[in-house]
Amino acid sequence: EISATLGVYSVSLDTLLLILCGCLIMTMQAGFALLEVGSVKVANVYAILLNNVMDVCVGTAGYFFFGYGVAFGPTTGGYMGTVHFALSDLENDDALTWVFFQYSFAATATAIVSGAMVGRASYHGYLVYSFIITGLVYPTVVHWTWSGYGWLNSDLYGLAYQDFAGSGVVHACGGTAALMGAIVLGRRKLAKDVEDHAISESAPALVTLGFFILMVGFFAFNGSSQGAMSSAGDSGAVARAVMNTGLACASGGLATILFERLVHKKINDYYVLCIVVNGCLGGTVAVCASANVATTYGALIIGSSGAIIHCLWSISLHKFTSIEDPVDATAVHLAPGIWGVLLCPFMDKDNGIFYCGYAGQYDAWHQLGVNLAGLVAIIAFTAVITFTIFTILDKAKLLRSHQEKLEHEEAVRIHEQELAQHSHHGFFHDVFHHHH
Amino acid sequence: EISATLGVYSVSLDTLLLILCGCLIMTMQAGFALLEVGSVKVANVYAILLNNVMDVCVGTAGYFFFGYGVAFGPTTGGYMGTVHFALSDLENDDALTWVFFQYSFAATATAIVSGAMVGRASYHGYLVYSFIITGLVYPTVVHWTWSGYGWLNSDLYGLAYQDFAGSGVVHACGGTAALMGAIVLGRRKLAKDVEDHAISESAPALVTLGFFILMVGFFAFNGSSQGAMSSAGDSGAVARAVMNTGLACASGGLATILFERLVHKKINDYYVLCIVVNGCLGGTVAVCASANVATTYGALIIGSSGAIIHCLWSISLHKFTSIEDPVDATAVHLAPGIWGVLLCPFMDKDNGIFYCGYAGQYDAWHQLGVNLAGLVAIIAFTAVITFTIFTILDKAKLLRSHQEKLEHEEAVRIHEQELAQHSHHGFFHDVFHHHH
Amino acid sequence: EISATLGVYSVSLDTLLLILCGCLIMTMQAGFALLEVGSVKVANVYAILLNNVMDVCVGTAGYFFFGYGVAFGPTTGGYMGTVHFALSDLENDDALTWVFFQYSFAATATAIVSGAMVGRASYHGYLVYSFIITGLVYPTVVHWTWSGYGWLNSDLYGLAYQDFAGSGVVHACGGTAALMGAIVLGRRKLAKDVEDHAISESAPALVTLGFFILMVGFFAFNGSSQGAMSSAGDSGAVARAVMNTGLACASGGLATILFERLVHKKINDYYVLCIVVNGCLGGTVAVCASANVATTYGALIIGSSGAIIHCLWSISLHKFTSIEDPVDATAVHLAPGIWGVLLCPFMDKDNGIFYCGYAGQYDAWHQLGVNLAGLVAIIAFTAVITFTIFTILDKAKLLRSHQEKLEHEEAVRIHEQELAQHSHHGFFHDVFHHHH
Repeated sequence: EISATLGVYSVSLDTLLLILCGCLIMTMQAGFALLEVGSVKVANVYAILLNNVMDVCVGTAGYFFFGYGVAFGPTTGGYMGTVHFALSDLENDDALTWVFFQYSFAATATAIVSGAMVGRASYHGYLVYSFIITGLVYPTVVHWTWSGYGWLNSDLYGLAYQDFAGSGVVHACGGTAALMGAIVLGRRKLAKDVEDHAISESAPALVTLGFFILMVGFFAFNGSSQGAMSSAGDSGAVARAVMNTGLACASGGLATILFERLVHKKINDYYVLCIVVNGCLGGTVAVCASANVATTYGALIIGSSGAIIHCLWSISLHKFTSIEDPVDATAVHLAPGIWGVLLCPFMDKDNGIFYCGYAGQYDAWHQLGVNLAGLVAIIAFTAVITFTIFTILDKAKLLRSHQEKLEHEEAVRIHEQELAQHSHHGFFHDVFHHHH
Repeated sequence: EISATLGVYSVSLDTLLLILCGCLIMTMQAGFALLEVGSVKVANVYAILLNNVMDVCVGTAGYFFFGYGVAFGPTTGGYMGTVHFALSDLENDDALTWVFFQYSFAATATAIVSGAMVGRASYHGYLVYSFIITGLVYPTVVHWTWSGYGWLNSDLYGLAYQDFAGSGVVHACGGTAALMGAIVLGRRKLAKDVEDHAISESAPALVTLGFFILMVGFFAFNGSSQGAMSSAGDSGAVARAVMNTGLACASGGLATILFERLVHKKINDYYVLCIVVNGCLGGTVAVCASANVATTYGALIIGSSGAIIHCLWSISLHKFTSIEDPVDATAVHLAPGIWGVLLCPFMDKDNGIFYCGYAGQYDAWHQLGVNLAGLVAIIAFTAVITFTIFTILDKAKLLRSHQEKLEHEEAVRIHEQELAQHSHHGFFHDVFHHHH
Repeated sequence: EISATLGVYSVSLDTLLLILCGCLIMTMQAGFALLEVGSVKVANVYAILLNNVMDVCVGTAGYFFFGYGVAFGPTTGGYMGTVHFALSDLENDDALTWVFFQYSFAATATAIVSGAMVGRASYHGYLVYSFIITGLVYPTVVHWTWSGYGWLNSDLYGLAYQDFAGSGVVHACGGTAALMGAIVLGRRKLAKDVEDHAISESAPALVTLGFFILMVGFFAFNGSSQGAMSSAGDSGAVARAVMNTGLACASGGLATILFERLVHKKINDYYVLCIVVNGCLGGTVAVCASANVATTYGALIIGSSGAIIHCLWSISLHKFTSIEDPVDATAVHLAPGIWGVLLCPFMDKDNGIFYCGYAGQYDAWHQLGVNLAGLVAIIAFTAVITFTIFTILDKAKLLRSHQEKLEHEEAVRIHEQELAQHSHHGFFHDVFHHHH
């Protein structure tokens, strides 16, 4: 009887962790929405926010009908789950705890995408790609890595892709989809390039509030990635993950402001606020993969380097490409996500390349190879599927909002004029030019 | 000794669920406040928000002095508790966990009312009705249904009114009080009818943020309605409730936007955002009653039908009556609340009319009768008491704010002019007219 | 084996409480930021919010490198911890739970300071003082009182300073630092004194949202101050602390509005909203010290008296001094914080002066003496260190923002003119004058 009671308590402890953290993770939807509306022109706000709400609705449907089955159903060859569609044939009600928890992750991955297309995608485009990303793309990646059956992390090929809270699974996947969206949409009149008076008076407060919501959401996200609370070691892993998240977030912010002060000597306040906030998030994204195994010093290194990589990506995207990413979604999620997955085999405090000593080097470098292979697979798969979807949607005239169609043509025309008039004035001029 | 430790852990698990969910439920106060200020003219904002803050303060006092005693004190004839006023004579400190948890529910029920009177009720009117609703009306309904002693759910008459998370107890009760308030206040110049420039620039962001806060609040609200976490089955019920809440919310939003696209072909962005958000909430309200027993498919059906009923109620209220409900509080809480209580005996996956098979039909239809009786009792009781209070307050010149007194007279005058000038042009014209 | 499982569960329960409440406490950063930007002129908003974000980043670094070691490292003479710098030599990963939890407290204490200097401190000044307060000042106070080794609360001198959730440790400490900052900054053009059109349209919504976030944050803050969830009595203490917090918050709001209606008969809406919100928070701050031991009636008394003291402090600061505290940070945190620490030995339901009976009076008055001594020590220590820091920063031209330098000179000039022109017209005139 005691044993039965202990079994009940075990489930209760796990459920408390997963449900309550799932709730906090769902608040990240508000965080993403606020960051987005804080970064764009006033005129688009209604459509953006409606899309954020619809994102959750459609994403829920996508995850219910297909996503969970694809991610956690018994595997077909290690590539995809093919049972539990529409949550059918679940063992018992307790299985719904895991569904809810994983659904909050899927909603986060999908929300990342909207950032790179903010104010530009039509309502119909949103419905379609949200459904596919939540129902197929992200869950497939999860199946490969976190289901226990996938080719990247099971006995199947003896691989063990290491990515605790999803630097690769969630952020590189979502970030790649965001990048494909931005590529297909092409050049636009950038929100931050428009005159200052077009920035809403409430924008900075919304950006900051959105950031704090995301920060707390990340504590829950990374902490609960342990997935359980009832075995020895669970509590410690949760605590380390949460603490490392805080350290990476803070060091990301500090690295970003130092970088900005040294590189961008004369920048406006709004830009600084946005990039510091994004630097914090970039650091947090980078630490996801190793949040449970990095040392606290390691978290500072991962966070600050992740934030610098975010800055470099953001500047490079503006400088070298015509891709417009108004909320820096790819800079925050894709670049530090990749960095985090690659750093993980170095920073693992027990088995990492920097810590394992001579005897463990073979295994540690093998782990790096596995993580690199996983990353390539995740990004390639996501890129191919989402680029195809976005291209089809664009050809079918379903991707762009009406306003965006007009602005896109105008932006292309202006850009061509500018190219004709201006020659290149070097790195600092260009960076300055793009951000003002 | 092991048994004693297990007993302590049992209490700890329950306390964690109830206190932490209670905290998340209290964030719904912010959600209601943001939805309200996002839906009204700029001029009223200070007064509205002050009333939202006072609502919590007075509601706390009402629940402390009377509410808890009325709801959970030993019963007098199954109708009302009459002990524990001012939280006197509680067993021990652990009893305060239940008090805090139930207080967060009471605060939610009371906050619903303010939506229908947003920007119109005077500060004094607010104080009085908040105190009475939190101290008497809502707690009486809780006593009937959830105390274990009440006439609707105890051995007294052998009735077992089924309403897991309060579609009837919380939302139909709060929604009825809101309707009475709106009826007594009568016609106004509707916020959404005023020119667009009167809508605050930050309104859409506030509405969306308010929605996401409420969504997460509802996860906590419905999940924690199980009330415990330490017995076998608790975890599963919590998980099912939370998952069903998410599904109903999403299906509500999708049903609403489909309905709007088919019926309202040309509508402005702000209106769409508000009605989709409210549709999501309407779906969530409808699923409350059966969140722990509905199948996941059932949750989709309950949520989408609840949202449609919300739309129909909202349109009908505008079309057929002179009642003004600027944030659609009655459409979101009353109509889907009624619907949810009535659907529950159909959708219960074990004993419901649709699932129980031939042998169980008698009991299932009996359950429908009990739920219908409970609903009639709740609505009638709430309507009589609150209509009386609001009418007395209005006669005593305490109900309306100063601004409202002027606007109400103006609105009545304008309406009479319009009636004189216009004849009726049919349903679509009218709907369009009212919403623009 | 059962015993081992029970041990694991014990840690899991504590971890759930501390990590989840730590997350909710971290949301208070958003609450403080929103209250601040809701209270100042539009022009400063970017800088203020950037400072709030940097506050968290630098504070995290300060707590990581020094703060935790100072607060909880093995003691040097009862005055300061001197081990665990940079979280070195922690026992195991579970120790990080305590680090994260305490770090959320430290971040709160530091955030208080920014309120009194909102829009005035330069970015560099912020970095320096945030680091020192989070790394040295606040942790030293914690070491004295909450570490188990400190001179105020250990076997060392047999003292047992009683301050459950930090009316003194967190709020009087943070509030004193805020006061020192405001004193060193001196007179300014007060935000609320500028013309109404300078108040952002979204300000009232931000203030209200900030308040609700802080209210929920305080539930978590005070509840989790029990620090554990796995022993008999923990659950009850958590429940009492949370319930008392709600009661003190509500009674604080009610006391404030009654006070305002009686004293300030003609006041503008924005001012009323701000002071009621602050009154709620003042009541909450006052109850921190005794949240686990006060009766529920006691919480009402503590909360309402704390709120009145907040009002009197706020008015007195405007009337009698040239210190400007635009968000009333000292009125909300310092004054009710002191009051709460002093009331605690009276209001303890078991051992307090009002409850202990004749036999316990000696011990109870001794407790009052200890609390008084602790308070003097906390305030004196904090005042000396922070006044020195702020003065050095000011002399080094690092404290003030560029804008503030200009405005400060202007404000001093205007003030001197006013002094020359006006004589004094009595209390009500003056209060009215200052708030309009």
